[in-house]
Amino acid sequence: MAIPKPSIPKGTRDFNPSQLAKRNYIFDTIKRVFRLYGYQQIETPTMENLSTLMGKYGDEGDKLLFKVLDSGDFTKGVDMTNTNTPKLATQLCGKGLRYDLTVPFARYVVQHQSDIVFPFKRFQIQPVWRADRPQKGRYREFYQCDVDVIGSTSLLHEAELIIIVAEVFKQFGTSVTLKINNRKVLFGIAESIGYADKMVDITVGIDKLDKIGLDAVNEELMGKGLTQEAVNALRPILELSGTNSEKIDQLRTILSASETGQKGLDEMAQIFDYAEKLGVNGMEIEFDLSLARGLSYYTGAIFEVKANDFVIGSISGGGRYDDLTGIFGLTGTSGVGISFGADRIYDVLEGLNLFPAEAGSTTDVVFANFGEAEMCATLPLAQGLRDSGVAAEVYPSNQKIKKQFDYAEAKGATYLVFIGENELVEKVATVKNIVTGSQENVSFTDLSNYFSMIIK
Amino acid sequence: MAIPKPSIPKGTRDFNPSQLAKRNYIFDTIKRVFRLYGYQQIETPTMENLSTLMGKYGDEGDKLLFKVLDSGDFTKGVDMTNTNTPKLATQLCGKGLRYDLTVPFARYVVQHQSDIVFPFKRFQIQPVWRADRPQKGRYREFYQCDVDVIGSTSLLHEAELIIIVAEVFKQFGTSVTLKINNRKVLFGIAESIGYADKMVDITVGIDKLDKIGLDAVNEELMGKGLTQEAVNALRPILELSGTNSEKIDQLRTILSASETGQKGLDEMAQIFDYAEKLGVNGMEIEFDLSLARGLSYYTGAIFEVKANDFVIGSISGGGRYDDLTGIFGLTGTSGVGISFGADRIYDVLEGLNLFPAEAGSTTDVVFANFGEAEMCATLPLAQGLRDSGVAAEVYPSNQKIKKQFDYAEAKGATYLVFIGENELVEKVATVKNIVTGSQENVSFTDLSNYFSMIIK
Repeated sequence: MAIPKPSIPKGTRDFNPSQLAKRNYIFDTIKRVFRLYGYQQIETPTMENLSTLMGKYGDEGDKLLFKVLDSGDFTKGVDMTNTNTPKLATQLCGKGLRYDLTVPFARYVVQHQSDIVFPFKRFQIQPVWRADRPQKGRYREFYQCDVDVIGSTSLLHEAELIIIVAEVFKQFGTSVTLKINNRKVLFGIAESIGYADKMVDITVGIDKLDKIGLDAVNEELMGKGLTQEAVNALRPILELSGTNSEKIDQLRTILSASETGQKGLDEMAQIFDYAEKLGVNGMEIEFDLSLARGLSYYTGAIFEVKANDFVIGSISGGGRYDDLTGIFGLTGTSGVGISFGADRIYDVLEGLNLFPAEAGSTTDVVFANFGEAEMCATLPLAQGLRDSGVAAEVYPSNQKIKKQFDYAEAKGATYLVFIGENELVEKVATVKNIVTGSQENVSFTDLSNYFSMIIK
Repeated sequence: MAIPKPSIPKGTRDFNPSQLAKRNYIFDTIKRVFRLYGYQQIETPTMENLSTLMGKYGDEGDKLLFKVLDSGDFTKGVDMTNTNTPKLATQLCGKGLRYDLTVPFARYVVQHQSDIVFPFKRFQIQPVWRADRPQKGRYREFYQCDVDVIGSTSLLHEAELIIIVAEVFKQFGTSVTLKINNRKVLFGIAESIGYADKMVDITVGIDKLDKIGLDAVNEELMGKGLTQEAVNALRPILELSGTNSEKIDQLRTILSASETGQKGLDEMAQIFDYAEKLGVNGMEIEFDLSLARGLSYYTGAIFEVKANDFVIGSISGGGRYDDLTGIFGLTGTSGVGISFGADRIYDVLEGLNLFPAEAGSTTDVVFANFGEAEMCATLPLAQGLRDSGVAAEVYPSNQKIKKQFDYAEAKGATYLVFIGENELVEKVATVKNIVTGSQENVSFTDLSNYFSMIIK
């Protein structure tokens, strides 16, 4: 019987060496920047108790949780004929796969609160799983990369996260715009036109302005129950323009009656001031009233990052939350965080050809193999290269040189070194640069020096 | 209603910043060495099709697989009253969590064979899951760290892996012994005393020699059906001593009648020769006939690494296999690999106090906060440090200095920098080394130079 070619579950991926090297380049860059600002990495388990996860992502989220069957006799004490399958699932499965990094982080903070010195600046880079319908760019297993500081209300952290974003994308060599808004300002807008309870509808409306135009937005808002008067009052807000500080100045007047709105504007002014003092490395920061972000737990600043030279959704986003850990019984710990979208950043860097060449290569030098005696002479030379930090391989068998050449190329090596019969006698290696095609003779004793000078 | 303090599933772990920094130190060290030898990293999905995993780890292994409930109506077409729960589990669950890295690697090689240039030198560092009973040192989620080369029969790879082991543990600063044996030699021994079919029993017997003594071993073997004559014939093998090459010489004679045994001895001699040419950095390599290793797929050399100065099971192990991918329909691809036990290595380095101090620290310098004006002046200075590669934090609020000091200490920072009213006027910071207690004045303009000289 023929064995069928194996496959992997839909929506999941293997990462081959080249893809993984590029992903690692992304994560390593981000980690390096995080560390410069004193953020510390943690990891949480892949499986959480299902009770930790259920009810945290809405009804739809509950359905999208991957649930892990209990070990042993999972039917024990369970009515297996129960036709309420969501309920039955929770009886068969005590554990589920991590759905995001936010809820496990909140759980971690509450569970380990007595060991944590606050403010707790943490980052976390781990995969998450969602039983979503897979489609282009949407996977059932994907990495999240979150950075948060919890246990401090200082707006310095908002500014720090903005600078981190600027620094990360500067290192990637790609131009981005950080859009920032504030939930308190959004509330102030809703409040000042008399519809504090319709903040979400109004924000959605503002968000559509670019796409459908002012009249259509007004119509939609009136459909949601806003009066003509309220819609008219919204108009100057929708047409707000100018620099960030000009926007703040105009909003000061417009939102003069809203205490919350004024508080939001104070926050924005303070964040811009701190960010300027830290230096934003030329990244554009745009106070964008149409930025809403779906997550209901945000209470202050909200962020989103867009690539300027590549068409794709937001590549990073986050905001301030005042009560993330409340779901686990610890109230009053404000925090702010931002998440980097690794898959989209990958697409941007790939699309703009911004991955450094090294990210794809794993070997610097391959020594060709001309037979047992030659190979044995090669071994200590290859080892000398490694001792100097140069990644080197000895091709393991005496194959046709074409095959060895292809191998070196596939590994991303720049150099193929020939040590044949003549070279062995002369103690001089023939070094071929397989990118340029040029060739040089280098004595055995100079070899590791030669390469360690070229390859850093 | 009080919310119960959250917890995580038994046998799983949170890793706090200090633990994770130490684990990353282990993985980073290992990765750096792997890369010098041209090994490439891959990753495979957390979930595999259950059919990929079932039957690959024996009946016991099938039970220990974590199975993931199908999404949607998982009861559809399933007889839920089936009391054969293992069977029922496979009907409810199409996917399972990765149990080791070996089977997914074999699956990967077969699935992507047309894209792979062989020999394929890969490493993989990912968690695996087993529904084992948790106990001290045994977890339900733990990392494996595997390095393999597949698609080459060259014994150079065995030697390379030995050198990699030597190099890794040299970098960890811990003394280890690599024990090596060969399945062909073990078969040769069994064959030469007339019990080729009892290789495993005989190996287990040899393994117990140290613990229970020669007489008890002989008794046990005769209990397994060996004749007195066979047991007598085994005696010189059990009492074999001397250097590795002396052991090979003696076995040449003892196993003169076994072609397979001679082949195994040829391999051992060749491996030792290659390893010597590559240089083993002082690590002891011991040809140990009592080394068996359980996994039935090994066909040539087998390895195990023991810490010399710390009592713990083997911290690394592996061997040559000739048909790992056969289970997925690709035959004739020989490979050899070794796995590093991250949790045990962690225990060894922790127990011997070998983690470098940096592994636990995440921030170099904390700037104390004496109020808004002082903090604002501090921000560009902190940024200057970061631009020079020094991890710096500004404490976010004007708290009691004791609290700020405790924070700096908890972050593993060496320096606490004071910029108060006076410092602000003089433009000179007070730099306190919180390890030694010494204090220095450094002008604002010299600050980033000062720290980038000290902190590399």
